Amino acid sequence: MWRASVLTIFPEMFPGPLGLSLAGKALAAGLWSLDPVDIRAHAADRHRTVDDTTAGGGPGMVMKADVLARAIDATAADSRPRLLMSPRGAPLTQARVQALAKGEGAVVICGRFEGIDERVIAARGLEEVSVGDYVLSGGEIAALALIDACVRLLPGVMGKEASGAEESFAGGLLEYPQYTRPAVFEGQSIPEVLTGGDHAKVAAWRREQAEKLTRERRPDLWAAYRNRPKAPKS
Amino acid sequence: MWRASVLTIFPEMFPGPLGLSLAGKALAAGLWSLDPVDIRAHAADRHRTVDDTTAGGGPGMVMKADVLARAIDATAADSRPRLLMSPRGAPLTQARVQALAKGEGAVVICGRFEGIDERVIAARGLEEVSVGDYVLSGGEIAALALIDACVRLLPGVMGKEASGAEESFAGGLLEYPQYTRPAVFEGQSIPEVLTGGDHAKVAAWRREQAEKLTRERRPDLWAAYRNRPKAPKS
Repeated sequence: MWRASVLTIFPEMFPGPLGLSLAGKALAAGLWSLDPVDIRAHAADRHRTVDDTTAGGGPGMVMKADVLARAIDATAADSRPRLLMSPRGAPLTQARVQALAKGEGAVVICGRFEGIDERVIAARGLEEVSVGDYVLSGGEIAALALIDACVRLLPGVMGKEASGAEESFAGGLLEYPQYTRPAVFEGQSIPEVLTGGDHAKVAAWRREQAEKLTRERRPDLWAAYRNRPKAPKS
Repeated sequence: MWRASVLTIFPEMFPGPLGLSLAGKALAAGLWSLDPVDIRAHAADRHRTVDDTTAGGGPGMVMKADVLARAIDATAADSRPRLLMSPRGAPLTQARVQALAKGEGAVVICGRFEGIDERVIAARGLEEVSVGDYVLSGGEIAALALIDACVRLLPGVMGKEASGAEESFAGGLLEYPQYTRPAVFEGQSIPEVLTGGDHAKVAAWRREQAEKLTRERRPDLWAAYRNRPKAPKS
């Protein structure tokens, strides 16, 4: 079973939104497990101190290396990747999500305050992962995003029919436009090709739209798509 | 007051993590407001249907334009930006977060299923925003991320001393390494410059480290930083 352990000073934030909807049903069905770990329980003093002032001076507080190391040591005695949610990390991609979903799970560490003591990152082999180029008040919502992205790809979580094969990033492209009833909405009709019943034409139109969207909106993804290695013919 | 309205079929996911910690204290103090809107309440039939099959065929379901349009019309009769959380959108950046935080708030629309009917996007002037190049089971966790990023920048939410001026992205660079007590952790000392008391040397070291990290980890941000317009001297 895919196992997520989340180290946080706000264990009550979990499962939160992951307890509902797709991820929540899968959690209740035992398709994955979630184990929130309270970093504060690993503090050494009676005030359960987890942070201290920044060496060299400056605003904010830094999470202590010794306390976080103890929390990691008590949790992660296995080969799951240890991910530190941090805006300094490698940007999360769907390819990384797919790789994580194929593994045993993840130990997800949520920073707070100004950051965490740099020394624990190397000492405990933490991999810094960023969910995007913006700053959150802590790693908890980033952890929710990462876990949700992984869980929906686990076997049995999405229906067979909704395999994720045609969604954004799966083929290196943004997803084509979608339509449903009513046939006319405020004077706008569904594109004729989609209601004509010619499956080859539908597929060609969708591919063309996905390429156009990607080219116009994300030149970076478009360049990578154009340079992608071709799949070997089998 | 900064106002977030969130249109979702899972209103019970809110405030969720935004009800705790920094954002939660600010919510309780009336520094911002959160209004979850149940899209399902705007369905027209007794089954409260919000989705239907994909025109042209294919897996999954699409959120109906008419139902979502009614939910938007009932909620957003003001000038707040209407943001549709979607992996097809413009990647969220800290600059966009700062601009949103300076405004009146946001109407945040959470997609679900395969997507939403394309026609409502133009008809209601929705701005598609992506929190990252990965796929979530819905827009709700993306909405939590966007709102958390904005709220922490609102006046009075962070202490004056933690203004966000030195964090990742604020100056176009990733943040420098942080350290705190103990002075030695598992044989690793805090870098000497940080404990020497020379503020100019500390500032120079931090700048150098931030530049090095950005150059090594994020060549894209580094290129933008090197080409940034210089601030006019005053």
